[in-house]
Amino acid sequence: MELPKDLHVQGIASFQPPTRRLMGPGPSDIHPRVLEALSRPTVGHLDPTFIAMMDEVKSLVQYAYQTTNALSMVVSAPGSAGMETCFVNLVEPGDKVIVCRNGVFGGRMLENVTRCGGTPIVLDFEWGHPVDPNRVEEALKEHPDAAILAFVHAETSTGVRSDAQTLCGLAKQYGCLSIVDAVTSLGGIPVLVDDWGIDAIYSGSQKCLSATPGLSPVTFSKRAVRKIKKRESPVQSWFLDLNLVMQYWGSGGSKRSYHHTAPVHALYCIHEALLMLQEEGLDSSWERHRAQHERLRAGLEDLGFRFLVDEEYRLPQLNAVFLPEGTEEVGLRQKLLREYNLEVGGGLGDLAGKIWRIGLMGHTAHSDKVDFLLDVLRKEL
Amino acid sequence: MELPKDLHVQGIASFQPPTRRLMGPGPSDIHPRVLEALSRPTVGHLDPTFIAMMDEVKSLVQYAYQTTNALSMVVSAPGSAGMETCFVNLVEPGDKVIVCRNGVFGGRMLENVTRCGGTPIVLDFEWGHPVDPNRVEEALKEHPDAAILAFVHAETSTGVRSDAQTLCGLAKQYGCLSIVDAVTSLGGIPVLVDDWGIDAIYSGSQKCLSATPGLSPVTFSKRAVRKIKKRESPVQSWFLDLNLVMQYWGSGGSKRSYHHTAPVHALYCIHEALLMLQEEGLDSSWERHRAQHERLRAGLEDLGFRFLVDEEYRLPQLNAVFLPEGTEEVGLRQKLLREYNLEVGGGLGDLAGKIWRIGLMGHTAHSDKVDFLLDVLRKEL
Repeated sequence: MELPKDLHVQGIASFQPPTRRLMGPGPSDIHPRVLEALSRPTVGHLDPTFIAMMDEVKSLVQYAYQTTNALSMVVSAPGSAGMETCFVNLVEPGDKVIVCRNGVFGGRMLENVTRCGGTPIVLDFEWGHPVDPNRVEEALKEHPDAAILAFVHAETSTGVRSDAQTLCGLAKQYGCLSIVDAVTSLGGIPVLVDDWGIDAIYSGSQKCLSATPGLSPVTFSKRAVRKIKKRESPVQSWFLDLNLVMQYWGSGGSKRSYHHTAPVHALYCIHEALLMLQEEGLDSSWERHRAQHERLRAGLEDLGFRFLVDEEYRLPQLNAVFLPEGTEEVGLRQKLLREYNLEVGGGLGDLAGKIWRIGLMGHTAHSDKVDFLLDVLRKEL
Repeated sequence: MELPKDLHVQGIASFQPPTRRLMGPGPSDIHPRVLEALSRPTVGHLDPTFIAMMDEVKSLVQYAYQTTNALSMVVSAPGSAGMETCFVNLVEPGDKVIVCRNGVFGGRMLENVTRCGGTPIVLDFEWGHPVDPNRVEEALKEHPDAAILAFVHAETSTGVRSDAQTLCGLAKQYGCLSIVDAVTSLGGIPVLVDDWGIDAIYSGSQKCLSATPGLSPVTFSKRAVRKIKKRESPVQSWFLDLNLVMQYWGSGGSKRSYHHTAPVHALYCIHEALLMLQEEGLDSSWERHRAQHERLRAGLEDLGFRFLVDEEYRLPQLNAVFLPEGTEEVGLRQKLLREYNLEVGGGLGDLAGKIWRIGLMGHTAHSDKVDFLLDVLRKEL
């Protein structure tokens, strides 16, 4: 046999990443204690110690979402896969789904509905504005056969918060299940799954939870589980089929069985991050995000930044701001990264080149980071 | 607002996993250098330093698979999602797919074909035996309209190796694309994508590559990419749609664009693991796996173990063995874990309770581990 070809791999060395301050739309800074958890010794994905840890993760996910849902777990892939988990399991071909779109991630929900063979009813709202419950109620009245209402709680593309409590109340009133995107909200602002009657919700590990990117905590109500178990067509994804995944997470009511190999170290990490959230307390975490947002807001407004979103609907953890007149957006953002190891995010879609998205998520939401950013901006503007 | 409920999270502490020796069917032991890479500082998934590292990962994946395929990358989820990536992108509704099933993972391929709306032609082979190329050729002749041939190179459930070179040659001869499962083979035995003419192949990070579980290196031939780009129906998974993913991995020929948040730390880890494989050299790695298998085989046979698979088709990295007459399988396996921190795997399906699967994968394939296992067995049998 011929010896292996070296192709183009000569000269590659171990990757030593720079030490950044992450103040963009995610990932956020990770607390050293949580980062350390990542590199603990590997155990098997069916090891009894690991299974016991997964049970704790489940309880911690329930705490973070304020729910007693039995089907609470972490999808072994990023938030986009958490979104897909909700749609492929709950949408059956032909199901009518009302999709609210007020930013990039509502658009992604629409993609999911179409690819599942659902019939989307799209409600468009201006970017930077919340979903309007009145228009949602009109649509629910107009489509009494709608099966699902889907919306984004915290739009990462614009920094706007929609009223999840009211919207989920409407869904229930009109006999729909609700699917909620909480990628950017969980841990940063209240997400009260049981109180608000949310049926299916997903988040991301790398935002206000400040764990390693690549996981998606999800939870499903009893109503949602009933629909999943009674599906007439199989779930189109084998990897994301909750009928199978819930067996491995021990939420299926029977013996645990192997489904896929869990991302062992990433789960150590989110266990530690969720534990830190519980130790701090959800209400303290929400208050910390709020207070740091106020600190940032005051500083930015002094410097001539203007917020995209009306005060009432602003996410403390994701600040979408127009730059002061005459500032070169891309150049300044790249300079911050290059010279100060400081990451802030640019705009998406029509907002590209016009706004910055400044994240104060999880471990990033501390005054030393806010002050550092403001100091840098005072110097550079 | 009511204060957050504590639910059942009292008494949860940081998880401190035991230090195991992992000699099951995966995950395998991780080299300290690779484990350390996991917890390097977080950078953003669009950070220029991270993008440069992704380019290196791509080159290292090409080296591991011995291919110059432009579409070589790492799926942000475990091997099962790597499998699904191949099927959802290559199988269009109505496509006839010949699926060879000689163990658990061939059965999973069949699940994928059905869920993609493909028409499966299933060829069953006795577990513990390889796929028979003669029967595959008969099926290819009988179904001249077949679009794809799918088989498992290294069956993790039985430890058998099928002849990927011959099978992919047949696929090409009869005008089919080939999809190959190399979850357990990559790095442990030759996998020569270009020489053998493989069209789509996936592996797992946690087997012979000894990186953190949760990632799947994949590569696709030009023929496969052509089929993906010319699909009439959209790929049913948004998260795994290569038309979108390849933009982020810079294999789409145009500017990089955001698709999902990459699992940043896991990619540091597989970068380091693939780099170590390249430093050792593929041929040295294959030889090390072979030599450690011989060492293990001699010791096991002395103790009265018998191999499930004929010598010619055995995987050095996954040894499926019947226990000596009268040994209590489950009890001994649990004792090894409990008293020696030593993990070996049990059997799956009909082989449950009958065989062990002893892995010598990646960093586990060293003589100190083989000798430790044999010493323990000599004491306990």
